[in-house]
Amino acid sequence: MSTPDSGAPTLVSDLGERGVIERIRRRLPQPPPHLLVGVGDDAAVVEPERGAVELLTTDALVEGIHFDRRFSSSADVGYKALAVNASDIAAMGGTPRLALLSLMLPEGFPLRDLDGLLDGLLAMAASSGIALAGGNITRSPGPLIADVTLTGWCRRRKVLTRNGGRPGDALYVTGTIGAAAAGLGWLRVHAGTNTRPPAGAWPPPDFTPEDDALTECVRRHQRPEARLRVGALLGRTRAARACMDLSDGLADAVAQVAEASGTGARIDADTLPVHEGARRWFDSRREDPIGAAVAGGDDYELLFAVSPRMRGRLKSVIREARVPVTCIGALTAEVGVALVRNGRPEPLPRGFVHF
Amino acid sequence: MSTPDSGAPTLVSDLGERGVIERIRRRLPQPPPHLLVGVGDDAAVVEPERGAVELLTTDALVEGIHFDRRFSSSADVGYKALAVNASDIAAMGGTPRLALLSLMLPEGFPLRDLDGLLDGLLAMAASSGIALAGGNITRSPGPLIADVTLTGWCRRRKVLTRNGGRPGDALYVTGTIGAAAAGLGWLRVHAGTNTRPPAGAWPPPDFTPEDDALTECVRRHQRPEARLRVGALLGRTRAARACMDLSDGLADAVAQVAEASGTGARIDADTLPVHEGARRWFDSRREDPIGAAVAGGDDYELLFAVSPRMRGRLKSVIREARVPVTCIGALTAEVGVALVRNGRPEPLPRGFVHF
Repeated sequence: MSTPDSGAPTLVSDLGERGVIERIRRRLPQPPPHLLVGVGDDAAVVEPERGAVELLTTDALVEGIHFDRRFSSSADVGYKALAVNASDIAAMGGTPRLALLSLMLPEGFPLRDLDGLLDGLLAMAASSGIALAGGNITRSPGPLIADVTLTGWCRRRKVLTRNGGRPGDALYVTGTIGAAAAGLGWLRVHAGTNTRPPAGAWPPPDFTPEDDALTECVRRHQRPEARLRVGALLGRTRAARACMDLSDGLADAVAQVAEASGTGARIDADTLPVHEGARRWFDSRREDPIGAAVAGGDDYELLFAVSPRMRGRLKSVIREARVPVTCIGALTAEVGVALVRNGRPEPLPRGFVHF
Repeated sequence: MSTPDSGAPTLVSDLGERGVIERIRRRLPQPPPHLLVGVGDDAAVVEPERGAVELLTTDALVEGIHFDRRFSSSADVGYKALAVNASDIAAMGGTPRLALLSLMLPEGFPLRDLDGLLDGLLAMAASSGIALAGGNITRSPGPLIADVTLTGWCRRRKVLTRNGGRPGDALYVTGTIGAAAAGLGWLRVHAGTNTRPPAGAWPPPDFTPEDDALTECVRRHQRPEARLRVGALLGRTRAARACMDLSDGLADAVAQVAEASGTGARIDADTLPVHEGARRWFDSRREDPIGAAVAGGDDYELLFAVSPRMRGRLKSVIREARVPVTCIGALTAEVGVALVRNGRPEPLPRGFVHF
């Protein structure tokens, strides 16, 4: 055991950059055959997937903007930093492959938290067949930042862009919406004055939300699941013709798919799969559950457009992926995006705003 | 012209995330044929280079750690953010291809500075055949951060790793060393109390260093040149068998190439190509110019090892690349890295320390 008295390193700065890279390298599993040179040289060297196109995406988690260390353990941050990128690859109909981790660490960052962050990131990587190929580590003058770049692959004609939708296509969403926003809301109200939970020990006894559905919401905020399997299947089978993930909320995704496809969209409020815990949470706060759920970000479900003649194919995909999928509306010839509630259209609330 | 009074946007937050992405997209030149889907979808879609392996690298510029906005214009930051990554691709013997830009912008960031940053980044991209394929934009609770991921390609058997050196190989370095450290030193002494120069207007009249050599040093700190041509040639011709860039200084690079290759190294102080302005600057500060130049980071020259029988081939590379190259020592069978000065070996000073 290392303690401050024993002289063993307790801070990242005790190891230095090369020591940290070595510590990370020792934790990596056997690299896949396509990773020819991994962590430790000027660049990673990669054998491309034969006969496929490559997908490239990057997304950062910034302390104070995307997470609060009182609400998320280091392992949660590492897990989520990779998961939000995997969600982008899934939304393109692709399969994730290699990650680069760019870490910016505040002064006095504990080694224990670096290890925790890697625990989360490597657990997510292992569960989805992703190898850590390289990255960068530097100091930060303030926030902890985990910025991940993820590569993936897809057959050339199976890529799912945002712009392939046509009027009359049905709009579907995977899983449920609103859970992450509700979980974050709960944490802000109940956990705001508590000290930070220790890494990996969630939920601590005094932190537990009232019931299982709300615990699920908190967990969704901390560790979203990327819909990798259904995303790859929607691309491979061509059951969907446009797709996007809900990183910034359903309302934002609907608006973007419609705009990119040159269509409008109509969403039926009654059909929306609002998470049970989210519904209860927003009710208790006297907020409109539908409005809060469509505007809330961080759900990382997939929104996709399906042409009427592809419904049979979609059924097979749903059976194979074993993910609940709900039809929530359709793309329309008239431009504009409407939420239809009690028969009356209203404008869709905006999604998560980055600025 | 936009002024705060006219109602035209002056801050990034006036545009919103989608507005910013659209503003960036409008500035991009025609995409290369291998970029099938660029900025604006969940991920970029890329056709791999046929018969080549892919290189992947990432490097971040963090305000307060890697740059100071009093010393570097926004355009310098954008330029350098891409150049430091290109240097890593060059050090692998590769050719850069596609960049992802992950931007973290402080509250109240002016649109003028965003435009400046893109000016610098896109100028560097255009001059080296790199296309901007995507990225991410988010708020930062403090520092401005430009985190770039760069891909490149290389023939499979032409990759230049750090670990290919053998005892008896001569060590070479391109260009000169110490200039960036001297330039930063000059800025810290002379510009520390001045206000920030306007973007793109370097050098302002009251900022000019004493002579051309020092101006070059300041410029090297602000806008390092990646040694792309010579790096690709060293790989393609196999004139070198190990290579690394000097991002963290010559001393660090020599130690890392030697360690990775399982050798020691001996550097002859008399041969070191210390930049003339750096020599003068460190002399004037009563610092040892050799020690300061080998420890100073940010030069982005290349260090490489050449087997004795490859000297002829190296000569052709130097002729073709038109870059000055200096033999500064050799890899040795005895482990340990020594700087030989006046016939006496001394330990090499450490390079730039990230923690």
